[in-house]
Amino acid sequence: MSNEPVPEHIVRSYDEELRRLRDMTARMGGLAERQVADSTQALVRRDTALATEVVQRDVQIDQLEREIEAFCVRLLALRQPVASDLRIIIAAMKVSNDLERIGDYAANGAKRSLVLSSLPAIGSLNGFERMAHLVQENLKAAMDAFVNSDAEAARRVWEADEPVDAIYNGIFRELLTFMMEDPRNITSATHMLFIAKNLERIGDHTTNIAERIHYAVRGDNLPEDRPKADESAYAVVRPAGS
Amino acid sequence: MSNEPVPEHIVRSYDEELRRLRDMTARMGGLAERQVADSTQALVRRDTALATEVVQRDVQIDQLEREIEAFCVRLLALRQPVASDLRIIIAAMKVSNDLERIGDYAANGAKRSLVLSSLPAIGSLNGFERMAHLVQENLKAAMDAFVNSDAEAARRVWEADEPVDAIYNGIFRELLTFMMEDPRNITSATHMLFIAKNLERIGDHTTNIAERIHYAVRGDNLPEDRPKADESAYAVVRPAGS
Repeated sequence: MSNEPVPEHIVRSYDEELRRLRDMTARMGGLAERQVADSTQALVRRDTALATEVVQRDVQIDQLEREIEAFCVRLLALRQPVASDLRIIIAAMKVSNDLERIGDYAANGAKRSLVLSSLPAIGSLNGFERMAHLVQENLKAAMDAFVNSDAEAARRVWEADEPVDAIYNGIFRELLTFMMEDPRNITSATHMLFIAKNLERIGDHTTNIAERIHYAVRGDNLPEDRPKADESAYAVVRPAGS
Repeated sequence: MSNEPVPEHIVRSYDEELRRLRDMTARMGGLAERQVADSTQALVRRDTALATEVVQRDVQIDQLEREIEAFCVRLLALRQPVASDLRIIIAAMKVSNDLERIGDYAANGAKRSLVLSSLPAIGSLNGFERMAHLVQENLKAAMDAFVNSDAEAARRVWEADEPVDAIYNGIFRELLTFMMEDPRNITSATHMLFIAKNLERIGDHTTNIAERIHYAVRGDNLPEDRPKADESAYAVVRPAGS
């Protein structure tokens, strides 16, 4: 709320608008979580109907992002918010931007799982399920922190991405080994590598969301160095015997 | 500018602030372009010193994003802009967000080129150079459109991403073929695949930037369906003879 005194009926309506903004953003977060969950289930169960649903549902997320942005612009123009209200509105815009990217990554994963369902299965998908589970939990916790304006909860999410990176590094090495063992695994393993990378990036966007919420609630930034364990950009895996 | 009459000295200072915002954003765009160019040169020339520079320079981009956001928040709180001024300020925030991602992708590519420089070279890097060149040109044109408030130029950038996707699809297939020919190519080809994907995503972020500029200048959205040629998520490449 702005610090300046305003007539009661305007206060109430403004509060309602801010609550509506939180609700819209929370709804978008819920949809993004569901897309991550369903695209992973589609991969694990080789469920092409579900994968197709995920791909088609992506437009809903894009639409919500546009609605949130339009609503924020309206609030900025009509309410001219300051201080924490202004930070919340900016956070909602930025969070919706991250959620839109998360939706894109989930839809891209679903497209790839459509291809994978037509190819022989390789390796175990346990790592993917664990990664998706962690990422979804973090995303849910981040959106709860947003709805409850809970900076401490946001900080915990921000710190919780490390195991996601660790699982990704394991998957990276395992898939490269499968590729080296049999060239017929290469197409599948490549698509799986990109799906794993998508999940890792979803984790990164979730920490971005947590950062923005922390800033919106507290007005100060988290430190720049986040605990980060993704070393795959530096990884060298060699074929057995070479 | 706001439509309401305001004292002349405030008008001038506000104009200066908006010009400063454009300058900061243009500077960030220039830095992002340079990161894309240098990370590609580091890859092509196997220049580890340049790759290391790119990785280290990424903090400058992150810093600029924070400065732009802080400046925008200040403008929103103190100037309470409406209409096209408000759209420009929101565009600057969103554009800086896209530029930060572009910087991340360039730095990630530079990290991977450090690994690649220690492995035997495979294939030609012409496709990477062409892709990087197109992406940089589009990014430069997008930032020029921002500085000049040129919606038509922004629309042309938005339409120009298709050849980038086409080159990416070619690289994807070529690299999978190299992997299938010799397992010793797999680590290198995987890192190269991610670098190509990074360039493709830089292209996507550039079209996002163009969309936001078009919206900021004109107040209406470009159509939802952008010309898009990346079909690699659906690609199946089979080993020779299988």
